[in-house]
Order: sequence, then C-alpha cells, then structure tokens
Amino acid sequence: MRTINLYERFSRRFRERPYLSVALFVTSVSGGGLVAYSEANKPDELLAADIKKKRVVVLGTGWAGTSFLRNLKNPSYDVQVISPRNYFAFTPLLPSVTVGTVEARSVVEPIRNIVRKKNVNVDYFEAECFKIDAQNKKVYCRSTKNQEEEFVVDYDYLVVAMGARVNTFNTPGVEENCLYLKEVEDAQKIRRKVIDCFEKANLPNISDEERKRMLQFVVVGGGPTGVEFAAELHDFVSEDLVKLYPAVKGLVKISLLEATDHILNMFDKRITTFAEEKFHRDGIDLKTGSMVVKVTDKEISTKERKSGEVSTIPYGMAVWSTGIATRPVVMDFMKQIGQVNRRVLATDEWLRVEGTNNIYALGDCATINQRKVMEDISAIFKKADQDNSGTLTVKEFQGALNDICDRYPQVSLYLKNKNMSGIVDLLKESKGDAAKESAALSIEEFKKALSQVDSQMKNLPATAQVAAQQGSYLADCFNRMDECEKKPEGPIRFRESGRHRFRPFRYKHLGQFAPLGGEQTAAQLPGDWVSIGHSSQWLWYSVYASKQVSWRTRSLVVSDWIRRFIFGRDSSQI
Amino acid sequence: MRTINLYERFSRRFRERPYLSVALFVTSVSGGGLVAYSEANKPDELLAADIKKKRVVVLGTGWAGTSFLRNLKNPSYDVQVISPRNYFAFTPLLPSVTVGTVEARSVVEPIRNIVRKKNVNVDYFEAECFKIDAQNKKVYCRSTKNQEEEFVVDYDYLVVAMGARVNTFNTPGVEENCLYLKEVEDAQKIRRKVIDCFEKANLPNISDEERKRMLQFVVVGGGPTGVEFAAELHDFVSEDLVKLYPAVKGLVKISLLEATDHILNMFDKRITTFAEEKFHRDGIDLKTGSMVVKVTDKEISTKERKSGEVSTIPYGMAVWSTGIATRPVVMDFMKQIGQVNRRVLATDEWLRVEGTNNIYALGDCATINQRKVMEDISAIFKKADQDNSGTLTVKEFQGALNDICDRYPQVSLYLKNKNMSGIVDLLKESKGDAAKESAALSIEEFKKALSQVDSQMKNLPATAQVAAQQGSYLADCFNRMDECEKKPEGPIRFRESGRHRFRPFRYKHLGQFAPLGGEQTAAQLPGDWVSIGHSSQWLWYSVYASKQVSWRTRSLVVSDWIRRFIFGRDSSQI
Repeated sequence: MRTINLYERFSRRFRERPYLSVALFVTSVSGGGLVAYSEANKPDELLAADIKKKRVVVLGTGWAGTSFLRNLKNPSYDVQVISPRNYFAFTPLLPSVTVGTVEARSVVEPIRNIVRKKNVNVDYFEAECFKIDAQNKKVYCRSTKNQEEEFVVDYDYLVVAMGARVNTFNTPGVEENCLYLKEVEDAQKIRRKVIDCFEKANLPNISDEERKRMLQFVVVGGGPTGVEFAAELHDFVSEDLVKLYPAVKGLVKISLLEATDHILNMFDKRITTFAEEKFHRDGIDLKTGSMVVKVTDKEISTKERKSGEVSTIPYGMAVWSTGIATRPVVMDFMKQIGQVNRRVLATDEWLRVEGTNNIYALGDCATINQRKVMEDISAIFKKADQDNSGTLTVKEFQGALNDICDRYPQVSLYLKNKNMSGIVDLLKESKGDAAKESAALSIEEFKKALSQVDSQMKNLPATAQVAAQQGSYLADCFNRMDECEKKPEGPIRFRESGRHRFRPFRYKHLGQFAPLGGEQTAAQLPGDWVSIGHSSQWLWYSVYASKQVSWRTRSLVVSDWIRRFIFGRDSSQI
Repeated sequence: MRTINLYERFSRRFRERPYLSVALFVTSVSGGGLVAYSEANKPDELLAADIKKKRVVVLGTGWAGTSFLRNLKNPSYDVQVISPRNYFAFTPLLPSVTVGTVEARSVVEPIRNIVRKKNVNVDYFEAECFKIDAQNKKVYCRSTKNQEEEFVVDYDYLVVAMGARVNTFNTPGVEENCLYLKEVEDAQKIRRKVIDCFEKANLPNISDEERKRMLQFVVVGGGPTGVEFAAELHDFVSEDLVKLYPAVKGLVKISLLEATDHILNMFDKRITTFAEEKFHRDGIDLKTGSMVVKVTDKEISTKERKSGEVSTIPYGMAVWSTGIATRPVVMDFMKQIGQVNRRVLATDEWLRVEGTNNIYALGDCATINQRKVMEDISAIFKKADQDNSGTLTVKEFQGALNDICDRYPQVSLYLKNKNMSGIVDLLKESKGDAAKESAALSIEEFKKALSQVDSQMKNLPATAQVAAQQGSYLADCFNRMDECEKKPEGPIRFRESGRHRFRPFRYKHLGQFAPLGGEQTAAQLPGDWVSIGHSSQWLWYSVYASKQVSWRTRSLVVSDWIRRFIFGRDSSQI
C-alpha cells in the first residue's frame, strides 16, 4: 500500500513537471529502482502528509459512485470503495442483455480498472455495507461471498451511492415468482428463463394449454425499462427464436401491464402514442389501467383500475419493472439521523444528507430536499435590503437576484418557464402595471411576487443521467474542497452570514431514449424535440457507444451489435 | 411438422435438379404458396413414406452426437435428439473460458442451429435420459428444468453419445469441494471462483495466513486439460490480475498435482520435459508422484506415491481434472444387456453395442472391444484356405490379407510398426529364412505367424477427435444403410458367411496440442513430428479457428483472441 501511495505521489509530480519524466524513464529502466529507493528513504514529511489524508468511503459502484470516482482528481484523499459488485454496469443496455443483443460482459467494467490509472489512492472491497454509524463515523460491512466475514471501516467523508431496491408495492407473490431487471444477474436470469420456456414448451408430453402458458411472457410496468424489454423480447422471438422453434411459434404471446392509462408516461404524448401503436402492430398485448394484485407460480391476477374487474393471466415468465424503493440499510440510517417519516433519504442542494456532517448521498438512494423560497422569505428580504430601510428597491432586488437564483433554482426555472426576462416582469405579475424600476417593495409585496415560484420544484427522476451528473458534481466539490473553503464560490447564505462554499447541484437534462424494437427508437431531446424511428435508433447507437466507460466495453458493445446483425442472437442455454 | 417434411423433401429435389430452383423462386414470391399448395394436396404415397421413416434417437449433443447429426444426410430417418444441453460446446477451448481468454458464449452453438438447414427432420428435446429400455426400444427421459416432467421416446435405432462423468476415484471430499472442468458451466464457475478468491483475499480484516490460503490454486491431474488450465490461470494472474490486485500479487501460488512421475504422459518425452521446465520457470509448483487422498473445504491431503509421506496443502480453489468414469444411466444399461463386469460400455468395431440390436454407442461413453485375431484364428484359416487343403499357400494367405487387415486393424498396424511390406516378411519372423512365396502353412504355423499381432490392440483415447470421427463414421453408415445392405462393402465375415455391410471404424490420429501458456504451445503431429513454442501457438490458433462448428463461433473466438491481445481479460464478478 505504501509503495502505491508513494509511487502515485511521484507520478503526480512528474505529470506536473513534464521535464522530470525523462529522468523517470532513465530511472525506471533500472527496474523499479525508483520505488525501491523511495521506500528506503521515506522522508518524514511524506509520512505526515499520509496520515493527514482524509478518508473517503464510497458505498456503491453504480452510476453515481463510479461517476464520483472517475471525476475525483484530488490526491489528498484516501478512498475506499465498498460495493457487492466489483464492476460498473452500463445499465441502460440491460434490456439488450436479457436477450443477447448485447452480451453481459460487454456492458461491465471492473471498478479497479476504472480507478487504477488515477493519481488518487483508491481501494476496493467486495462487500455489502449493512450499517452506517454516523455518530462514530464508521460503516459496518459484510463480505458478499462469506456472510460471516464482517469488518468495520472508518471515514472522514462518506459518500452513499447504494442505489435502490425493486419496489414490489407489497404485492403478494412478486418476490417469489417474478424476475427483476435491475442488475446484470437479473438480465442473465431472464435470458436463461426465456430459453427455458421455449425448451419446456417444446417437450413432447406437454398439454397444449401448458405449452401455451409456458410461452406467455408478462412484463409488469410500462416505464422505459419495461417497454424496452418487451420490445427486445419481441425482436428476439420474431427474428431468432421462431426459426429454431417452428413448432411452437404460433403460441408465443407478450403482454405488457401498466397501472396508469398510458405507457411511457414521462415522455411526450407523441412518443406514447407511437409506442402504443407500434406494440399493437407487433402483436404485443398492451393492458393499461390494469394493476397486478397477486402473483402465483403460474398466474398473475390483475384488477382493472376503473371497473374493479379481477382477471388472471397464466404466464411462463413474468418480469417486474415498476419502480424503486429505499434499501433497508438506508431506512435504518434514516431512523438514526432523524429522517423518520420520509420514504427516501433527503439531502440538501449540495447532496449533503440532512441531519449529518460529512455524509453525502446521491443517485437513486436519495432525493434533494429543495429549500422553499417561502420558508426563507423574511431572511431573503432582510439580506437583500442592504440599507436596512425595511423596503426593497428594485435595484436592491436585482442585486440579490443572482444569489437567489443560485440558491433557489426554482426561481430561475419560474422566470424561464414564464418567459420573464427579469424582475420587472415578475413584479408586473403581482403588482400589475404599477411595477417600475423605481418602485420599492414591502415584505408583503416581495412575498407576493415570489409566491408562485415554489410550484416549480420537483424531484429529479431516478435515472442514470441524474446519478452520473451528481457523481461528477460531488467529485468536483471534493476536488476543490480546500480551495473553496478559503474562497467560497456559492451564493450568499441568506439565513446566516457569509457565502456557501459551492454552487448547489444543478441537473442538466440531455434527453432520453425509449427503444421500441425493430430498429426504431423514440428520443425526447432538450427543447421538446421529439424524434421517432430508424434515425433515432442510429442516434441511440451513437450515444450509447460514446457513453461507454472504457474503450474495451465500447468495442465490445459495437461488435455485439454487428454480430447480432450478421448472425442473430444466441439461444444456447448457458 | 408435416410442412417441414414436405418442404424438405421438395428442397432436396430442387437441389438435385437445379433448373427447378427458378420455378421455386417464382412460386415462393407468392408468399409460401408452394407450401400451402402441397399441404392441401398431400399425396398418399408421401404420407406412406413418412410413416415408414425409421426413428433414430440420439442421446447427447457433445462431439460424438453433434458430429453424427452434422453428417447425417439421408432423409429417410426421423431423428430425435435428447440432451440436457441445447448446444454443442467446443470443449478444447474450455480452459480458455475459465479465465476469459475466450468467452463461454463464443464456444457454443445451439444444436437447433446446427441441424436446422439439413434435409433430415431433426427434433430436439432438452431433457436427460435416465433409462434405456433395450428390450422395448424405448428411452425414458426427464426434463432438465422440471424434474417431475418425464416422457418416453420410442426408437428404431438408438445412438448413445452421452459422454462420461468426472472420475473422483472415490476420493473423499472431492465432489463437495473441488470444481471440475468438463462443461461450460464448470468453466464459468471456475472463472467466478478465481475472482472470488482475489476479492476475498483483498478484504481488510483477513489474517495473512488466510489471505495466502485464498490465493493458493491447486490443479489435480497433469493431463492436457489440467496442464492447459494451470497455464491459462498463470497467464490470467500474471498478465491481468496483478495489475488490479497489487496488494496481494506476491501471495498467489498455483500448484499442479500429478499422481504419476510426469505430466502430459500421453505426449512425447520432449514435450513433457519442455512443459515441466516451463512451469518451473513460471513458478507453477509441480508435484509429481503425489496422490490426493482427501479434500476438505480448506485443505487437500496428498500422499507421496514413493515415500508414502502424507502432507496437506491449504487451498482457495481446487480444480479436479483426472479422468473420466461411466455415467450411472450407462452402468444401468450395461447390467441390462449383460455387460456386467465391464467398467465401460463395449461396442464392436462398427460401434454397435455388444449384446444389443440397433443400439450404437460412441464417444467417451463407450470403448470399442476389438476382436482378437487369436480368438478367430481357426475360422480365419478355414476361410483363407480356399481349396480346403488343410494348408495355406502364401498366395491363399495373400488373397485373404486385405480382408484380415480390414477386419482386424491390429494386423496392418503390426505390419506397419514392424516395417514389414507383406506376408513374406511376416513369415520370416516365425519361419525364419525358410519363408518363401511358395511355402505352405499349417494351422500351427499360421497361428505362430500371427501370434504377436494382437499386442497392437489398444483402446482409443477419450478425446474430441475420436468422438468426432466416430460420429461422422456412423452418420456415413446410416446414410448408406440400404445401399450397403444390398451391396456390402465390408470385409469377409470369417466366422459366418457373406461380408460385413460396412468397413469397421478406423481412427485417424491428426495430432494433439498442449497449450502451455505465454503464447507457447506444444504440438504432437502424426509421424512423430513435435513442435514446441510460439509457432505452434499460431498453428493452434489456426486449427482451433478452422475447427469451429459455425461462422458465428469462429468469428467470436477470433475476436475474443484479438480483444484479449488489446484489452486483456475481464475480471468483473458476473
């Protein structure tokens, strides 16, 4: 461990001063002589620096955790990563993995590989955190392979990025009988199960009814994952399996159950309609407004939301993809820190867990509890009223606006959504045409002017994009922690004195895809730009290829796509 | 099913008469009109032909079974394949799969894909045969996924190609604690286990002793598989894992245990020596003359064959690769047909199971019980003595020699190995210089002349090469069954009248590889040609790429090799 730290410290210096690299080359020719030398002559101040290093513990290697690790560049931290998965998985391709359009191994990259070439010292432990002790700054972990193996890790900063678990809404039988689609293992299980169903349906002594049941595939949840999986499964069956299982091809049926009235709710209406029509043409049975109330080993019971009618669907494989819930260890942690009545761990706009020091949470395991303007309205008024006159001139308001917008992003969102260019427009709404540059506002008028802005607050979606942006934001904060401590760059603290160290996290939506099968994809891009069809599929290919975490996975994913075009998908039962 | 048969029959005719294909094209443009037409006008004689089809049941989709299926071309059979694996696996690459040099999916091809484009009607059932009823011509099968699902299949011809199971030699603890390397799943298990061991050894609270134990990899068995696996593992560790697990790299130890005095016994001495020296240089601990007597969950006990000394080796992962034994279902079948005291199912030289009608066995589950010349010596003498004079002239002997060599391959082997060009040479050995073209032999002299030939008999090795050749031989027999029934092409039946229908199976050894890691391979080619080193590695690459069963697997295997050259092997725990 010492060797690595030292080596990394040296390599950092060499990067900072390129002329040293020639010297390094000459030295390294002698076969690690440099390291041996530095080991023998360990200067005392380096040792001291080592002890002072802040210990950062990262829980999780998903989008949030990995993005944090990839962007962390400040070598003054000693990082320990704890996660049951020693790899990062490119989860948006999981629906493709379920049917072998892309191989499982093409979408994963070992976390050690990702952090290896950095100048930050990162250790990884394959274990699951089962308890966070915020009081004593410790996390309790358990080896994933040997449940008896437990250990404790101390931290100075804790980054919680453990993701979420599947939400079954306590529907009976889901856990025992349904497959999920959250992890790589889930996708592999689904792949094996699909072939299982075809092989079983093909056995000679099966009754026709049973044969039909085996080939009923039910997808519960009409979100992007469920829809994409149904589309991928349909492609797999119609492009590959019907050729190999000609005897049973007429019996296959794919059903998609959605509790609300439409699939892909979070997308533009045009996309929803296109998807519904495409599924109809493809023969995918779309049941909207239909809630699953019970699952047994062979049947799913649904209840029509409107009529209350209960019916049962026999099935061979059911995939549950309806949403996420908080993990038990996080629930436990929430109780500990006083977040008792919440369903999700709350952080402030800087991703710090409310009620703790030095604990950050990001990704699916947390939500940002945005501060309402109305809660702080008096403090804001007071800070903005620089001459303490008890009234706020428009100029004073203008002077504080940047900080207000920085601290309360809903204000700028409100202005943008209402097409307002500045304060005068805002005042016009509350004061009517009396609003002028020269007007002075009482606290009541100020409140009235800002009364609607909090309506713009909404939680960020639980997507890879949000998690990745949060990870890189937090890494950036960590990178400049000391710097910003001395020279804060955030907005004014309205309720206290001084400024915030950092700007709050701001999410930038880059658009979203919904692959619909048959080489067609719906894309909803920023600025309400909707694109549906084959061209979006190519956009999808490009974006997903470019977003790969390494050249290895990039080349594998692309070669998997090519392989699929030429040879189709493999149906071997392995 | 009817549609397929008819379609296939048509397509065969089209292939026989190419000018018809234009007509077919025109017809098929109208969208399957041909099939619809033929369905509607099914002629009676076709129906009758269908009923008369002989039912061939093939047990197993390994090298033997798949080779049989690929080479079967006679459409007068109705083939049903029963195997727990719906794919063919290119087993010589399994050691590569254990460490991800090649991916598991790159070495498998669905059996349905392999048989799909043939003009022979082949059905596949994913099930395991648990009983063969030779009396009633039935096999009893059980679904692999649902053990309660049982069914019975009737046959006219049965082809047993179920392979063998791992031989633990009843060593206590092997079954519970060791991993095997026979199936694709085994290779996948080993891959996960290797990463497991590294991750566990990397946890913070492990004792140094335990850390060391976790990284002790023991391979039991110095045959080609064990040796190749040890070499692959060494490459994986030294080329890829040490970079990712720098903290534990000094603790890794790979041991290879072999009960006899040398590894790779079946190879040329030069290869054995080279391999042993290379392993020594690589730091692989080679323990020859060391028998495993017991395995617990953390230790392997060995006994020195010479000194009797017992010692224990702590281990993190143990792979057992010592040989094969007969499967229980085959043992059961052997009892049924009177092969009670044998350890392996015996067939005659035509691969027919001794003591049965219409049952064939090939590959690792059977051995050819070669007929000794000495058993039939009187019958041979009588048949050869065409003028019934009681003595055999050299001319008479010469006349029968081709049939003798055909029926008893050991005779030609004997002549070849002793560098004898003909009978006179053979007689010289027994009669001395008195041997002349004109000499006449008594039965005693004839016996004496042939007394040594049976020493040339030896069992064929249990290799993919033998199994594949047997499969294609048997398919060829099946293809020409009727033809050869009328016009037998085999040698004279010495103990009965007439001729054998077919020539007996003759194995043609094409050479064997032993990859030794570090891009070096030992190759033993026909004619005692031995080649060791990097050039043989390229020969190995070419041969293994060319032997792939489909273009899909061929391109995948080659791209896996390229991927490994560029990016190394993946160590994600999936």
